[in-house]
Amino acid sequence: MYEGPLQRLIDELSRLPGIGSKSAQRIAFHLLSIEDTDARRLGHSILDLRDQIGHCVRCFNVTANQECTICLDARRDQSVVCVVERPQDIVVIERTNEYRGRYHVLGGSLSPIQGIGPDQLRIPELRKRVESEQINEFIIATNPTMEGDATAMYLAREFKPLGIRVSRLASGLPVGGDLDYADELTLGRALVGRSEM
Amino acid sequence: MYEGPLQRLIDELSRLPGIGSKSAQRIAFHLLSIEDTDARRLGHSILDLRDQIGHCVRCFNVTANQECTICLDARRDQSVVCVVERPQDIVVIERTNEYRGRYHVLGGSLSPIQGIGPDQLRIPELRKRVESEQINEFIIATNPTMEGDATAMYLAREFKPLGIRVSRLASGLPVGGDLDYADELTLGRALVGRSEM
Repeated sequence: MYEGPLQRLIDELSRLPGIGSKSAQRIAFHLLSIEDTDARRLGHSILDLRDQIGHCVRCFNVTANQECTICLDARRDQSVVCVVERPQDIVVIERTNEYRGRYHVLGGSLSPIQGIGPDQLRIPELRKRVESEQINEFIIATNPTMEGDATAMYLAREFKPLGIRVSRLASGLPVGGDLDYADELTLGRALVGRSEM
Repeated sequence: MYEGPLQRLIDELSRLPGIGSKSAQRIAFHLLSIEDTDARRLGHSILDLRDQIGHCVRCFNVTANQECTICLDARRDQSVVCVVERPQDIVVIERTNEYRGRYHVLGGSLSPIQGIGPDQLRIPELRKRVESEQINEFIIATNPTMEGDATAMYLAREFKPLGIRVSRLASGLPVGGDLDYADELTLGRALVGRSEM
């Protein structure tokens, strides 16, 4: 539709998640209209990302170094590991300011349908950490989905016999939510997980 | 929130039109997870865009050369110029396969509130084209907005005395549309512009 370099950029942008061909075109023309240095900074940021960002050798969080800032922080409780599906989940949990342990990023959740078993996730690496570090507690923070549930159950079954205390984030009503709008599954979990007052 | 290069990319992406901080984060992690060459291709596309794409010296369409492919096409009718606001509009009109003349990109529309007068648009350049080329007809394809209307009226007033036939795209009901859903302004224009059967 457009000449070479412009069409190529639109095609590349269309491949990004959540960007359709209309948005891609809009972004490409935006990049053409702004200051040269501003547009180039985005291009270089993408190249820098791939040059400089990798995974923490211990917990597989994203990091610009060998180990991530959380693993390197000696003040954090090294006996507790919060197990998450993706690096993004770490930021969400950190924002609560309620957790002072370390993390382990699985890289997804168990899904037999998609052919994702324990060895496709970083569960072998988690087992090695249990062997070499002084870990005695897991907090499983996988998503409250079927796959997240299966992953949590698998981890509990595998690691509790090794003497590790395993707990999982509570499922229930969102704070500030309305009972009327809760689906039956969430409400069911909230009932089962109700707390004594 | 994230380490250097990752956070910088998220910040840059958030500046793009239609991309919020959530989408920016999602795209950044997507770029981290895909093949290295695929991610780098997007980065290089942005740099290539700025290196290679400029404006046609004649009509101000986007082009990788001095003149755009439409201006260089000798088979096109050089006596008719379709005046549009943005280069994107050319593609839309080309898709109809109904137009075989050349174009002129104004770079926006008249808007006294935003301080955009005739000299901020490429109207002086259009006047020069009228003087040096064999142009005898304008088809004004500015948007059917208040600014687009003002621009069309201005162009008609300025160029009709120079012997140029000036017409404007019809406003009316969209084909396949429903009378019920037409707003009063559109319906009003459809009435005024009705055609004999």
